[in-house]
Amino acid sequence: MNRNLVVRHIGRADPAVVAALGEAGTATVHEAIGRVGYVGPHLRPIQHDVRIAGSAVTVLSHPGDNIMIHAAVECCHEGDVLVVVNTAPSTHGMFGELLATSLQTRGVRGLVIDAGVRDTSELRQMGFPVWSQYVSCQGTVKSTAGSVNVPVVLGGLVVNPGDVVCADDDGVVVVPRADAEWALAQSQARITKEAATRERLLAGELGVDFYGLRQKLIELGVEYVDEL
Amino acid sequence: MNRNLVVRHIGRADPAVVAALGEAGTATVHEAIGRVGYVGPHLRPIQHDVRIAGSAVTVLSHPGDNIMIHAAVECCHEGDVLVVVNTAPSTHGMFGELLATSLQTRGVRGLVIDAGVRDTSELRQMGFPVWSQYVSCQGTVKSTAGSVNVPVVLGGLVVNPGDVVCADDDGVVVVPRADAEWALAQSQARITKEAATRERLLAGELGVDFYGLRQKLIELGVEYVDEL
Amino acid sequence: MNRNLVVRHIGRADPAVVAALGEAGTATVHEAIGRVGYVGPHLRPIQHDVRIAGSAVTVLSHPGDNIMIHAAVECCHEGDVLVVVNTAPSTHGMFGELLATSLQTRGVRGLVIDAGVRDTSELRQMGFPVWSQYVSCQGTVKSTAGSVNVPVVLGGLVVNPGDVVCADDDGVVVVPRADAEWALAQSQARITKEAATRERLLAGELGVDFYGLRQKLIELGVEYVDEL
Amino acid sequence: MNRNLVVRHIGRADPAVVAALGEAGTATVHEAIGRVGYVGPHLRPIQHDVRIAGSAVTVLSHPGDNIMIHAAVECCHEGDVLVVVNTAPSTHGMFGELLATSLQTRGVRGLVIDAGVRDTSELRQMGFPVWSQYVSCQGTVKSTAGSVNVPVVLGGLVVNPGDVVCADDDGVVVVPRADAEWALAQSQARITKEAATRERLLAGELGVDFYGLRQKLIELGVEYVDEL
Amino acid sequence: MNRNLVVRHIGRADPAVVAALGEAGTATVHEAIGRVGYVGPHLRPIQHDVRIAGSAVTVLSHPGDNIMIHAAVECCHEGDVLVVVNTAPSTHGMFGELLATSLQTRGVRGLVIDAGVRDTSELRQMGFPVWSQYVSCQGTVKSTAGSVNVPVVLGGLVVNPGDVVCADDDGVVVVPRADAEWALAQSQARITKEAATRERLLAGELGVDFYGLRQKLIELGVEYVDEL
Amino acid sequence: MNRNLVVRHIGRADPAVVAALGEAGTATVHEAIGRVGYVGPHLRPIQHDVRIAGSAVTVLSHPGDNIMIHAAVECCHEGDVLVVVNTAPSTHGMFGELLATSLQTRGVRGLVIDAGVRDTSELRQMGFPVWSQYVSCQGTVKSTAGSVNVPVVLGGLVVNPGDVVCADDDGVVVVPRADAEWALAQSQARITKEAATRERLLAGELGVDFYGLRQKLIELGVEYVDEL
Repeated sequence: MNRNLVVRHIGRADPAVVAALGEAGTATVHEAIGRVGYVGPHLRPIQHDVRIAGSAVTVLSHPGDNIMIHAAVECCHEGDVLVVVNTAPSTHGMFGELLATSLQTRGVRGLVIDAGVRDTSELRQMGFPVWSQYVSCQGTVKSTAGSVNVPVVLGGLVVNPGDVVCADDDGVVVVPRADAEWALAQSQARITKEAATRERLLAGELGVDFYGLRQKLIELGVEYVDEL
Repeated sequence: MNRNLVVRHIGRADPAVVAALGEAGTATVHEAIGRVGYVGPHLRPIQHDVRIAGSAVTVLSHPGDNIMIHAAVECCHEGDVLVVVNTAPSTHGMFGELLATSLQTRGVRGLVIDAGVRDTSELRQMGFPVWSQYVSCQGTVKSTAGSVNVPVVLGGLVVNPGDVVCADDDGVVVVPRADAEWALAQSQARITKEAATRERLLAGELGVDFYGLRQKLIELGVEYVDEL
Repeated sequence: MNRNLVVRHIGRADPAVVAALGEAGTATVHEAIGRVGYVGPHLRPIQHDVRIAGSAVTVLSHPGDNIMIHAAVECCHEGDVLVVVNTAPSTHGMFGELLATSLQTRGVRGLVIDAGVRDTSELRQMGFPVWSQYVSCQGTVKSTAGSVNVPVVLGGLVVNPGDVVCADDDGVVVVPRADAEWALAQSQARITKEAATRERLLAGELGVDFYGLRQKLIELGVEYVDEL
Repeated sequence: MNRNLVVRHIGRADPAVVAALGEAGTATVHEAIGRVGYVGPHLRPIQHDVRIAGSAVTVLSHPGDNIMIHAAVECCHEGDVLVVVNTAPSTHGMFGELLATSLQTRGVRGLVIDAGVRDTSELRQMGFPVWSQYVSCQGTVKSTAGSVNVPVVLGGLVVNPGDVVCADDDGVVVVPRADAEWALAQSQARITKEAATRERLLAGELGVDFYGLRQKLIELGVEYVDEL
Repeated sequence: MNRNLVVRHIGRADPAVVAALGEAGTATVHEAIGRVGYVGPHLRPIQHDVRIAGSAVTVLSHPGDNIMIHAAVECCHEGDVLVVVNTAPSTHGMFGELLATSLQTRGVRGLVIDAGVRDTSELRQMGFPVWSQYVSCQGTVKSTAGSVNVPVVLGGLVVNPGDVVCADDDGVVVVPRADAEWALAQSQARITKEAATRERLLAGELGVDFYGLRQKLIELGVEYVDEL
Repeated sequence: MNRNLVVRHIGRADPAVVAALGEAGTATVHEAIGRVGYVGPHLRPIQHDVRIAGSAVTVLSHPGDNIMIHAAVECCHEGDVLVVVNTAPSTHGMFGELLATSLQTRGVRGLVIDAGVRDTSELRQMGFPVWSQYVSCQGTVKSTAGSVNVPVVLGGLVVNPGDVVCADDDGVVVVPRADAEWALAQSQARITKEAATRERLLAGELGVDFYGLRQKLIELGVEYVDEL
């Protein structure tokens, strides 16, 4: 059965944990939780050097129709990230500066959308970060029902309302709400470990040695020769 | 019949109107004229935060051949935008810094091309803006006839010589020459209206209320629930 | 037979020649050597306005597996560019800041890879330039054999270890090692010639005249008309 | 201004001419009229070895919405081809067996659509040919206005209502209505000429000789050598 | 945490219901259950005119590695469909005639895979149907862990082990196991209704009339005119 | 330097060996020679169930220009396969029934081309097999120099004149001329081995057992559980 719902209230992870996951960065979080959670390379930031995390408020839309994004605004709280998914591919500029203004007044951290956005220069100027599949000034209608705060599939991943959405220059990673604290602990452990690795690499040590890859390469049948 | 023509003289819209359309921006103009005129998300700027408009001088080329771009230079005047379309897909870098130098001395505002461009770092430094489908250093031949200042199809749109080409971070929008003044009036009305909307949104009003979408959502069968 | 090899020693071109090819830029080098050597528009820089050249250290990897990149680090010297090619398409973030740290301590100039990279913000900050097909935080395994310093096909081009890899905003161009000096001489001749051309264009001369294209256009059957 | 229109009556070319253009085939017609009229390789047939032509009844639709296709049915006559274009990319299955049944009772020759179709097995069984960009069972809504029998852009081409649409295994070619008779004469001349060429080739003559290409190759600087 | 599991036993829907859903066809089932369940147009059949349904046995694989498909064989029963999803895009030919032979002896109905397959001619000859994203003879390694019978995301859809997978010329539709009987009832109702509609259309009635679209078109602002 | 050459004479492998490699099929040959030689999934056959092999006569062309294909005809002998590669992407229909007629009279086995072909229905009827990236009726010019029988890069692979090109429903595989006999021996060994494997699979044995994968799965950390 396919009901169209707007779900007003969702659970969210601890804001301090969410913020700390944002600072950890997507590559770290993705690795720390077992190399999962990445939504795919088609979602790209419209800005450089911005790193955020927030609680997902999800929107399921008909392509080229942004009525459900309007419906979602009042469901957003401080610290949220709006996640918009379409029922079929869409290149439309479904979101722009006015919707961002509205979300920014509510403390929303940013937007992730599998379609297009517009007013990208203004969005960068106002400091509202966006990860989208397209940039397009093409406008939308407001005609077809969809849902707010239902589970959606974004890229190769299920996003549940309230999941933690991390986004930076490398893309978008989603952490299930229940795993947020564990993910943060894992991420921080990884950051500590990588700092130590960095020191060794800067000192000239080789990863192939201290990761123990020499033996593995030989087991895999790789041969070392001096010249071709 | 398929004659290859270079048309020397074309009509152009009022330069003041063209300039004002450029300042309005593509999203505004596109919406103001009835959500048409957008050429599609495959044409992207090589620079950020530049907004132009100009009168279209059109070029129809064979893929990987830029002889007709050279032929078009002398047809360009102060305030024009060169629009280059290929008879089949091309990734070649059909345009670079020398052609831009030549156009810039004639007062041309920028380039829109459905193929590639090169010398992109230099083009940004000299302030000659470009919207293209690809960036590529691959060079071209000068062997096959084409046309200058004939109607062309760019993305999903017919561009006639003298049409107004608006371009910014959100893409490229084309306004038929005869509609330029009307389009400007519509755009300015929209800008005024959006300024008022922005104030209301900043004050915390909800678009779903003042756009009258609550009733529509109910008519569309959307149900509000407190929790999933 | 398909042996997996790590070749420790490769020949390289004269470092001064390599550096000078880097300064010439890809468009110039590509044109100067007869409009060849370009690997294609799918390889894009993650940074702006950086221009490098170096000697290719090549890596052939299984998709989503970066063990051979680790194996390649110790084969890299001052002035090299790491060139990573996969045996099938891969979107993985196969390379990040730790590998870049290791390469940077060895004087490597940059990375060219037909898959994804991650830590792109950090890579820009540390000044390690990258040309890749994707940006992705998705991590890799270290499970499958490949090769280092064997000939590889990158885009539409064979890259041999020690070939000169030039890269800038317009993409990546490869010059066979044996042609490096000749390519530099050709490039410098082209730069001189283009400077003269630039002066003439700035003075208002038309390329269609001094390139001798008017006659060619007529031979090709192009007709000049005053109006459509 | 962007009015949504259904235009009831359109002009059509002589049915005998249209039918004969269909028999000539797209490659022949495209070449005969000066190598124009081809809409591009993204529109593919769902069946093999079917060759048609008809008068275009055009539909302009919102993505994922087929209300205007329903509106177009009564505008179709014996010998027409329905041409459906979307205002933005759509992968939806916007057309299926029931609409085909309705069109077939009216004598419509086939469908050309820049989105998806479904019931493809049934469409082949009932002998209703289709050229589409996608095959998809995904259904559509009936919510947004569009137009019937206005000029549309299909691929890189303007299609006016009443233009002659030719389609076969090689794709779709559009002939302006006013050019139909001329196009047929040109096509028939080409068929005659190609039959003669075929005889000579079968007899072992070489195209490089009787097309006069040997001299051209030498002028282009091509060198003949015995071995590499 | 990201454990790699092989789950031996899964629940399945009633075989008679599954078979009947297969006969209904994807377009019918997709519409009947509320226009959901379609995995997207990138998954295409390698054969024509075959219509199946089965219970999903799911496989999650590393790109270019088919060890988990081998692990899945013994989990398959009479009436299953194998659903293979990769953790990142893969074009490899991950499946061929020998794996199909093994599955066919166990009564498996077919394969759905988001990568490539090979031996396609043999697969058609032996009557083992496949829906894949690519056809490719490129072979795989057997090196990296994955899972069998865990929930996977295929296209824009979650597939749980035991869900009903319907596939035909129009693509692949997934019905949650718990909804199978309801989906069949809905589908059969739709088939009955469409048969009646077909009769009316064959009799010359217009859908725009009996679907009640005339009034809607007018409300949407569509204008009827006699000529353009 | 970039000379344009037509090389008249090339070495070829033993015709009996070439023919036998064709019968082995691409998947078998690709696996037998160490999982190399595949050109990629973008080259697809226009026909079903045809399996060929031949000696490569190579053509390097400018996009949208088929003069070099005409030049290549007289370089083709009984048992050859024409391999056409473009210097940049091209969707043109660069080859059709007349060129096929000419090649067929010379005993050429088929065509592999990284652009488009046309007259596809006729090509199937006359039994001239083609593997191409596109089908397109768009015609070409005859204006720009290229080469015949020089090494080319097709997909991710170098093809030298005289290499053995195998092609069937699964794509195109290239075997270096010098490896042809070895490749055939390897392929025949593989065919024998697969026949034995097929018998065991038909008897109900499991690949996971006789390929020895159970132990490997455990070493990789895969866990078996009865239910999720």
